Amino acid sequence: MTTATAPAPASGYVPGLEGVVAAETRLSSVNGQAGELIIAGFPVEELASNALFEETVYLLWNGELPTRQQLTEFKSQLDANAKLPDATLDLLRAAAKQKIAPMDALRMATSTLNLNTPEMPGIDPLKHDAILMVARFSVIVASYWRLLQGQEPVAPRSDLTYAGNYLYMLFGQEPSADRARGMATYLNTVSDHGLNASTFTARVIIATGSDMISAITGAIGALKGPLHGGAPGPALDMVFDIQKEGNAEGYLRRKIEAGERFMGFGHRVYKVRDPRADVLAVAAKRLYEADGDTELYNLAGEVEQEALRLLEEYKPGRNLKTNVEFYTALILHGLDLPTELFSPTFAVGRVGGWTAHCFEQVREGRLIRPQSVYTGPTDSQWVPIEQR
Amino acid sequence: MTTATAPAPASGYVPGLEGVVAAETRLSSVNGQAGELIIAGFPVEELASNALFEETVYLLWNGELPTRQQLTEFKSQLDANAKLPDATLDLLRAAAKQKIAPMDALRMATSTLNLNTPEMPGIDPLKHDAILMVARFSVIVASYWRLLQGQEPVAPRSDLTYAGNYLYMLFGQEPSADRARGMATYLNTVSDHGLNASTFTARVIIATGSDMISAITGAIGALKGPLHGGAPGPALDMVFDIQKEGNAEGYLRRKIEAGERFMGFGHRVYKVRDPRADVLAVAAKRLYEADGDTELYNLAGEVEQEALRLLEEYKPGRNLKTNVEFYTALILHGLDLPTELFSPTFAVGRVGGWTAHCFEQVREGRLIRPQSVYTGPTDSQWVPIEQR
Repeated sequence: MTTATAPAPASGYVPGLEGVVAAETRLSSVNGQAGELIIAGFPVEELASNALFEETVYLLWNGELPTRQQLTEFKSQLDANAKLPDATLDLLRAAAKQKIAPMDALRMATSTLNLNTPEMPGIDPLKHDAILMVARFSVIVASYWRLLQGQEPVAPRSDLTYAGNYLYMLFGQEPSADRARGMATYLNTVSDHGLNASTFTARVIIATGSDMISAITGAIGALKGPLHGGAPGPALDMVFDIQKEGNAEGYLRRKIEAGERFMGFGHRVYKVRDPRADVLAVAAKRLYEADGDTELYNLAGEVEQEALRLLEEYKPGRNLKTNVEFYTALILHGLDLPTELFSPTFAVGRVGGWTAHCFEQVREGRLIRPQSVYTGPTDSQWVPIEQR
Repeated sequence: MTTATAPAPASGYVPGLEGVVAAETRLSSVNGQAGELIIAGFPVEELASNALFEETVYLLWNGELPTRQQLTEFKSQLDANAKLPDATLDLLRAAAKQKIAPMDALRMATSTLNLNTPEMPGIDPLKHDAILMVARFSVIVASYWRLLQGQEPVAPRSDLTYAGNYLYMLFGQEPSADRARGMATYLNTVSDHGLNASTFTARVIIATGSDMISAITGAIGALKGPLHGGAPGPALDMVFDIQKEGNAEGYLRRKIEAGERFMGFGHRVYKVRDPRADVLAVAAKRLYEADGDTELYNLAGEVEQEALRLLEEYKPGRNLKTNVEFYTALILHGLDLPTELFSPTFAVGRVGGWTAHCFEQVREGRLIRPQSVYTGPTDSQWVPIEQR
């Protein structure tokens, strides 16, 4: 077994497929050395804070921003297909009674979206299912969250943007324009990110000629894994602790000397500051200012500076920078989302990229089928059970 | 874009990951040039006709055949966990009303198996879920098939073998020993086959640290695709047509001259006769003889010979040999399974391999995360919608 970072010869195992290029894509470009993320041609800074999420999805699917008429038509398709099948809602109710984790519930519900598939005249099956996926992801997550709280789901409203609707369905209140803007910026920021494991899963499944529902269901399963990365966790816990205690440096120094990781710092790919962190920091600032309470935002900034200073002091040269999780947690917290909703909300954004990668892989039109090498015996002989 | 069959340099795209080795495995070895298939150390001919399916699964999971006590204990675990959650059955009923395809229903139901997860003291979560998957796959497929026919599901019986139980749950009648043996041989034969696309999907998902239910749900989605291969289709249709018409040579010559493919002949990997075809041919012969009616079996043999002769005449040097589909169709037809159940029944066998590959990948302990190369623009600028 080798730890090669470039493809080995044909007979050689490449652990983790590290360094192997498995796709050509026009959807996103991740440059970890330069700290750059391009989404469908746009630097993430250029796209995320300007676009509606439905514009970003249109862009990912079509390679260009929609005209107003195209956007209106696309949004109408999403709105018209947002309603969940009855059996899907029944399943979510059963899952909520058992307190099933939201990501598992999202996977279960997504897998059922072959039920009651609506007619979409003139739309091919692949696009049909892609519309269902995007239209319904936010509805599944919001409905399930309310069911978990013992509340009834809130039906979406076609007069709200996709991001605004998501907040509306979660909380039953029309969000302010600033809050809808904050959610759209978050969803745009995480909409695509190269060939991560969940996107790769979707491409492997759809490459067999299977359907989009199967591909996206598989991708949700991969996103669930703790090694996947990207899906934000409790990265603000340090900030909350420090909010209570008061002493950022003392708290962080104690933590780092105890050998604990700083949640929200360091990334497998980015060796400079994750560009998504910058975008979300700006968006979080705008959100907290609009809400008229910047205390937590300011504290988070202080904690970040202190954490970076101590990381450089204790782990010099390791280049551990603020990652997307830190400011994700800040903005989603500012939008009143609990930590349990962070990963499902990431999925609501990423489904834009997953579906776009499926379209791209189908155009490629070939099976993804690497090989394995066999390392076991080859000539075992059957022994009847009495003689074992 | 290249059509390289070996890994290209780090910057080069390898379409389909062809020739790239993505896993080391002790589970199976496919040698297409020699026509050899090894399953967990055993040549498929040695294993398939001897082992119970539950023995094969034990072998795949543990690397050795079980003692009688180990087998009894394993079978008890499967029997004790075969019952489907109520919500899963409700979902299958809703799907049956809409005539959802069996593979979609299997994916939907599998994804719900987090519901009502039973306690298994002393068993780790991965194995827990693997037991659920194997225990319930046959129950899901058989229950759903009966619901599709407007019949109630039949509960499994713990006194029958896994394969016998599957037939019992499908038809509500205890199968003969020969029929149970035929089904076990089929399930063993397809239990694993290198790093096919569905197995690779399961490994990619579980490699993120996700759970077995997510991984197997993803694998079902990949198996559904027509490019996946292995899952048998209507390979006997030619035989049925010839049964009516009488003239094998005339029928086949007409077909080949019309440019139509012979279903059941040719394979991406095997350039000699697929060893699984041999195993299933022997098993089919035994089954049809035990049933006292070998007419179809004999005719199939004649059609095979004639087809091979004409393939050599019309496509010399192409090495198009009988593949696993042809004799799969013959044996499953002999077991009274309709064509719609062929792919789900393949999945019932393959879940043994899928789960075993998940165990193996978890021991490997690292993310599978290849790269993509970006081929799009990098400096698009935002244009307000009014100006598009």
